[in-house]
Amino acid sequence: MKYTLYIGNKNYSTWSMRPWVVMKYFDIPFNEKLVKFDSFADDSLFKKTMLAVSKYGTVPILIDGDLVISDSLAICEYLAEKHGDLALWPADPKKRAIARSLVAKMHSGFQAIRTYLPMNIEAEFPQVGQIILRDHLEVKKEIMFLDDLLSSSLASKKSSCDYLFGNFSIADAFYAPLCLRLKNYHIATSSSVSNYIDIICNTKGIKDWINEALQERSFVAMDEPYRLQR
Amino acid sequence: MKYTLYIGNKNYSTWSMRPWVVMKYFDIPFNEKLVKFDSFADDSLFKKTMLAVSKYGTVPILIDGDLVISDSLAICEYLAEKHGDLALWPADPKKRAIARSLVAKMHSGFQAIRTYLPMNIEAEFPQVGQIILRDHLEVKKEIMFLDDLLSSSLASKKSSCDYLFGNFSIADAFYAPLCLRLKNYHIATSSSVSNYIDIICNTKGIKDWINEALQERSFVAMDEPYRLQR
Repeated sequence: MKYTLYIGNKNYSTWSMRPWVVMKYFDIPFNEKLVKFDSFADDSLFKKTMLAVSKYGTVPILIDGDLVISDSLAICEYLAEKHGDLALWPADPKKRAIARSLVAKMHSGFQAIRTYLPMNIEAEFPQVGQIILRDHLEVKKEIMFLDDLLSSSLASKKSSCDYLFGNFSIADAFYAPLCLRLKNYHIATSSSVSNYIDIICNTKGIKDWINEALQERSFVAMDEPYRLQR
Repeated sequence: MKYTLYIGNKNYSTWSMRPWVVMKYFDIPFNEKLVKFDSFADDSLFKKTMLAVSKYGTVPILIDGDLVISDSLAICEYLAEKHGDLALWPADPKKRAIARSLVAKMHSGFQAIRTYLPMNIEAEFPQVGQIILRDHLEVKKEIMFLDDLLSSSLASKKSSCDYLFGNFSIADAFYAPLCLRLKNYHIATSSSVSNYIDIICNTKGIKDWINEALQERSFVAMDEPYRLQR
């Protein structure tokens, strides 16, 4: 039986993007169910729909038969176990541990970037990016830390592959939405990170997600702090 | 070679508590290095000490030979892999997936509880608990959700064991600090969750952590929004 993956709008939903991209990159077939954001209020259509799927009421949700898995990281761990031959995590145990540290940091951290630079694939906000950097020191600090984390990971691998741990892994999928934020808010990064962002945007799965996000025509006010309309 | 685990103050550090408790419960030997909180400012003694250990500058950190692993969840995943015979996660793949969803929720969620009800094992704040519930609807909502999550997990397992997935697992360690918050702020819970909190407080490893927290004599202002002194 095929998996079903519930996701939100491709233009905005960073959490949905991660497992979707992993499944596309590694050719794991699934049925996609896109539930459009209206709001996250209890009586919103989005919440009502997702609460009927799982008590978490969030996206992404992976369905595998009678199993309902909430959360991008838990989904990726499940897929990594079920498809051990595909090496969704780096095969080397030490690299895998470092990759999980990086992913865990993404999962619980970078709160200022998340708050002030929400993902919005279709839009470009060069001025907003500069103003946020000017006014919010914590965003600046997180971006410096992020750049350091990514560039040292990119520098330390001994293979010629372009991803954080050599071959593409869950870690790259977790950092892809951040790359898109840096790009769309025109945030300056080190050359190795800029190069990595280009590679990420042209990666199988990520490229498809971006193209499908660009084809969406929704304008979701709660995800649009910097525009009144498209 | 023995592991080394860097942790913060036992009275306050929820993130440190999780892997420490897992290692004690499952008899995985380690050297403990407790780095006292002063503040999280860049020039604090805590930050300087931890930045010399890892670029994350946080606790917990696990050292295994030349490997430095940051983050409570990444550490627990590493230990679960290295000690496969101990079943740190539930052995059944479906239960394991559900356990990882629960842990992921704890890892990135419950922000209002974290903000308003910081762990403080040594103290009791019955009034503060009531005032927070009165004034912060989001705390109330998170507690209702938490109670629902835990009690349905406790009800659904088919064994007679008392933990979230039958035997004690990483999931219980992740929810232990939340149990201590509910207890110390005297937050009312359903009877199955109250019973679970009692069990958690008397669990090997957790009991030791609590006792050692009670023996600490530090007063860390940044972790004490509700007192001027002990």
